[in-house]
Amino acid sequence: MSKAIILVMDGLGDLPDAKGYTPLSAALKPNMDRLADEGATGLFSSIGAGIVPGSDTSHLSIFGYEQEKYYPGRGPLEAIGARFPLKEGDIAFRANLATVENGKIWDRRAGRITTEDAKAFSKYIQKFKVGTGIDAIFQPTVEHRGILILRGKNLSPDITPTDPHSNIALPKSMPLDPKDKAAKRTADALNKFTKMAMHTLDKAKENKDRRRPVNAVIVRGAGTYSKVDSMFQRYGVRGACIAGGALYKGVASYVGMDIVDVKGATGTFETDLKAKGKAALQALWSHDFVFVHVKATDSFSHDGKFEEKKNFIAKVDKELMPTLLRGNCNIIITGDHSTPVKRRAHSGDPCPLLISGPDVRRDDVKKFDEFACGAGALGHVKGTELFNIMLNLIEKAKMCGT
Amino acid sequence: MSKAIILVMDGLGDLPDAKGYTPLSAALKPNMDRLADEGATGLFSSIGAGIVPGSDTSHLSIFGYEQEKYYPGRGPLEAIGARFPLKEGDIAFRANLATVENGKIWDRRAGRITTEDAKAFSKYIQKFKVGTGIDAIFQPTVEHRGILILRGKNLSPDITPTDPHSNIALPKSMPLDPKDKAAKRTADALNKFTKMAMHTLDKAKENKDRRRPVNAVIVRGAGTYSKVDSMFQRYGVRGACIAGGALYKGVASYVGMDIVDVKGATGTFETDLKAKGKAALQALWSHDFVFVHVKATDSFSHDGKFEEKKNFIAKVDKELMPTLLRGNCNIIITGDHSTPVKRRAHSGDPCPLLISGPDVRRDDVKKFDEFACGAGALGHVKGTELFNIMLNLIEKAKMCGT
Repeated sequence: MSKAIILVMDGLGDLPDAKGYTPLSAALKPNMDRLADEGATGLFSSIGAGIVPGSDTSHLSIFGYEQEKYYPGRGPLEAIGARFPLKEGDIAFRANLATVENGKIWDRRAGRITTEDAKAFSKYIQKFKVGTGIDAIFQPTVEHRGILILRGKNLSPDITPTDPHSNIALPKSMPLDPKDKAAKRTADALNKFTKMAMHTLDKAKENKDRRRPVNAVIVRGAGTYSKVDSMFQRYGVRGACIAGGALYKGVASYVGMDIVDVKGATGTFETDLKAKGKAALQALWSHDFVFVHVKATDSFSHDGKFEEKKNFIAKVDKELMPTLLRGNCNIIITGDHSTPVKRRAHSGDPCPLLISGPDVRRDDVKKFDEFACGAGALGHVKGTELFNIMLNLIEKAKMCGT
Repeated sequence: MSKAIILVMDGLGDLPDAKGYTPLSAALKPNMDRLADEGATGLFSSIGAGIVPGSDTSHLSIFGYEQEKYYPGRGPLEAIGARFPLKEGDIAFRANLATVENGKIWDRRAGRITTEDAKAFSKYIQKFKVGTGIDAIFQPTVEHRGILILRGKNLSPDITPTDPHSNIALPKSMPLDPKDKAAKRTADALNKFTKMAMHTLDKAKENKDRRRPVNAVIVRGAGTYSKVDSMFQRYGVRGACIAGGALYKGVASYVGMDIVDVKGATGTFETDLKAKGKAALQALWSHDFVFVHVKATDSFSHDGKFEEKKNFIAKVDKELMPTLLRGNCNIIITGDHSTPVKRRAHSGDPCPLLISGPDVRRDDVKKFDEFACGAGALGHVKGTELFNIMLNLIEKAKMCGT
C-alpha cells in the first residue's frame, strides 16, 4: 500500500529580491531539486488564487477541510491545541495575560511573562461564574498566552474582542448586532469575567515585585466549538501530525489526526529536524500519511531575514530530507502560504509544489522554486485539491459516482 | 457555422510503467499527434483535481451538467439507457438476476445467464403490487442485468441496497435514517418485491435444467428520477451521442441528447470504428456537436492489459480518426477519467486533452500523451469547463452579463 509524507515549510513562498532571487531559489537544496526533477511540480494556493491565508485556515485546507465551511475561529483551535476538553457550544477565545494602567492597555504581554510565572497568576482566575448558568474557564499555555472558555447555554461568538491588538483603552465587548440576544448575553458574561479577573489579579501577591503587573486578561478570536466528522470518517484515512507549534497541532487534532509529540520539535530554527524525521518514519507505519511541519521559514520572513530563511531551507534539505527519503513513499513538499521577507507578512502568492513517487507523471521541471514550478504539469493547485490529489496518490480516494 | 466532435476514449489516462511509458505515450497515433501539434493541449479532470470519477458522473460533467447537482444515481441512468419510460418520482435501481441458496447469495449473476434466458424468467416478475399504491416493475436488459422501478407516492431512494456486491447473506433493505418514513415505506416495498420475486421464480419451470437457478433479484444504485432541463434548453445546442454502452447512452439521453444507434458499435474491442465514424459524420449535419465514445481503452485497463490498450488506441487513430477528420470541424479528444493498467481501477489522475480547429490557439506541444499535454496552453481543465470551452469554440456560448 502506498503512503505519503506531506512536508509543509511554513511561509515558504517568497517574492524576488533585487537580483531576482527568492530564499528558496537561492538555497542549496539538492534533495528537493532531485525530487522536483523526478516528479511533478506546480504552484499551490492553500485557499485560492491571490487569497492571503492565515495559518489556521491554510492548514484546514491542506487537511482536506474546506475552510469556508469548517473554520471554527482561532479560539477553538488554540484550545484544542492546548488539549482543553471543549464541549459542543463552548465559546473559546485566545487570551493574553496583560498589564493595564488607568484603564489603558500598557503591555499586551505583561512584560513577556514566563510560562512558570503565568501559571502562578492563572490559579486566581481558573474559573468564575459570570452569568446565569455561564462559567468562564481560563487556562494558560505558553508565556503570556492562554485560552478562555465561556460555557453555558445560548452563547454566541458574534461579539467584539477585548484585545484591540494595540495599546489603547481596554475595550468592553459588545454584540456585533445589538439585537442579537445570545451575543449580548455572551458579551455581558465576558465583560463580567474581565472585571472579576482584574479585581482578583490586582490583589495577587505575585504582582508585588513585577514592574509590569499581571492585572488583566484580554481576548480575541472568539469561536464556537462543534465537533466535525473526523478525517477517517470523511476520507477513510489516518493521518499523523508532526509539528512544534500548538496551532498546527490544534488544527490537526480538530480534524481527527493523531498528534505525535517530538522532543526537540520547538517550532523554531533550533528545532531538532532529525528527530522530526525519525518520528515521521515511525508514524508512517501506523498511518496512511504523515504531515511534517517546519516553522522557521515563516518566522524568518516575518523578521525580514532573507539569508536566515535561505539557510534554514538548506538545513531542512540536509538534515530532514535524507530521513524522509528513507520512508520510500510518496513525498509532497510545499508551503501553507507565502511570507515574502520584503513584506514581513503573509501574502496571497502561491507556493511552489512538488509531488514525487512511483505513480507520479514526471514533468520537465528540474528545480524546486517559485519560478521553475510555475511551468510544472500540476498547474495551479488550489484549496483542498491538494488533499484530493494526495488521496488519489495513495489509492485512498473514493469514487464519485459509479 | 462551426461544429465539433468530442471523442472520449474511456479510461484513457494512465500512469508510467517501469520504463516511464503509458499506453498512450507508447502508441503509434500519427493523427492524434498531428492534431496536438496543430492545436492546443492540456489536462482534463472531469470532476475535479484528484477526484476519482465514475462513468456516469464524468459524462454528466462532459455534457455540461454539474454532477453535484444533476447526478440522479445509477438506477435512473440505467433505466433511461434501457429506454424505460420513467415518470417523475419513480425510484429506479440497477438489478441483477441472481442465485440464492439457503438465504445466501451464491452467484450475483445467476451463472452469467444469456439475454434470451433472462427474458424468459423476467415474464414472471414484470410487475407486482408491493404496498399501498406502490408498483414494482422489472425489466431485463443485457444478460443478468436489468432495472427495477418502484412507482408510487412518497417514496425515497435513501435506503440500503439488497445487492451487497459480494456473496454473503441476502440483506434486507433498510432506511438510511430510521426516522425517515418515506425511506421506511420504500425499503418495505423493496423487501416485499424481493420476497414475491423469490417465491415466484422458485416455481419457474425454466429453472429445472439450470445448475444455477434464477431465484432472486438483487438491486443497488437507488435514485429518484426527475426530469432535467435539456441541453437545448440550458445551452441552446443539439448534441448527438454515438456509443456502444447503455450507460453512456443513458446519460446522454437524460440530458436530452439524441442517441444514434450504430450497428456494430458494441462497446468492446471489436466495435466497428469505421461505422461509428460514418455515423458521426452523418449526425454532424443535424447537430451542433457529436459525442463519440469508445470503451475498450477502459476495459483493457481494468484487465491490466497494457499492450492491448496501446494497440486499441492505435486502432482508433487508424480506423476512426481519418473519418472524423473528414468532418472538417473542431475536434476535442480526451478521456472521461484515467484507468491506470497497474491499478485496474479508475483513478483521479487527469487525462490528456487536445482541442483542434481553425479558431484554436496553437501551443508548443507536439504529442498527445499524459506527459506532453501537461505543458499545454489549456492548463488543467476541470469539470464542466470543457463543455463551456466547446460551446465557445462552436460560437454557441451565451454571454454572461452584457
